[in-house]
Amino acid sequence: MKILGIDPGTLIAGYGVIEKSGAEIKAVAYGSIKTGKNQNFPERLKTIYTGVTELITIYKPDHMAVEEVFFGKNFKAAIKIGEGRGIIFLCAAMANIPIAEYAARVVKKAVAGNGNAHKGKVQEMVKAILGLPEIPQPEDASDALAIAICHGHRL
Amino acid sequence: MKILGIDPGTLIAGYGVIEKSGAEIKAVAYGSIKTGKNQNFPERLKTIYTGVTELITIYKPDHMAVEEVFFGKNFKAAIKIGEGRGIIFLCAAMANIPIAEYAARVVKKAVAGNGNAHKGKVQEMVKAILGLPEIPQPEDASDALAIAICHGHRL
Repeated sequence: MKILGIDPGTLIAGYGVIEKSGAEIKAVAYGSIKTGKNQNFPERLKTIYTGVTELITIYKPDHMAVEEVFFGKNFKAAIKIGEGRGIIFLCAAMANIPIAEYAARVVKKAVAGNGNAHKGKVQEMVKAILGLPEIPQPEDASDALAIAICHGHRL
Repeated sequence: MKILGIDPGTLIAGYGVIEKSGAEIKAVAYGSIKTGKNQNFPERLKTIYTGVTELITIYKPDHMAVEEVFFGKNFKAAIKIGEGRGIIFLCAAMANIPIAEYAARVVKKAVAGNGNAHKGKVQEMVKAILGLPEIPQPEDASDALAIAICHGHRL
């Protein structure tokens, strides 16, 4: 079973594809979709949409997962976060793939055994769980893999 | 020149297409895209995306416009608002149509001559400006037409 985790942003969106069979779990691909410096906001959303749709076409995930967002700097920032997230939900719906949301705390607990674990600890655990030679870069990719691992545990 | 105004929501999205030539301005179409009661959230976004894309295909607008959002109930509500708005920006980018944002105050001023005008007054003015027999329904359609009229004034 393949799971695509996404750490959605409107400048950069991290992704991580994992494959889970029984207790075994491995990384299939990870990285990030970067938008262009000269792109206006709608164009950035298009880049994210096109990029995630391409990942779905290539890796054919059975499930998708994103992190739930509860709070942040301010209302305006929340609108922007939502605009990026909406695109990910749309990608899932267009491909008819179920998509789950997990609070950061739940992701940390699933990956590092502690809902208050530090970012570095979570990254180390992502590396260890997937048997990778180093912490996946960029950070957004590592976060996306953590979300995918969390969803794998929950299924 | 045709302008498509959208009042984005994730349950219902109002739309209004106007045509402006010189000082003359008329309504081409208006209404709303309703999502299904049994649809989950990603499916609702897909309905909005598909609906707006269809409107673009049918009416071939030269410009699009949405209302800017500055504040609201809370962070969670803002995320949801953003998720709906992101879809509209994506529709515009996919069709390569420029999209503008206007604060509610600016829309009211453009349509009713007063940034603090009541909703009923704005609706009456939308009806008068477009020479319609009655106030466009649903309310979301009237709001979308107001946004389109505002953009028409600004261009």
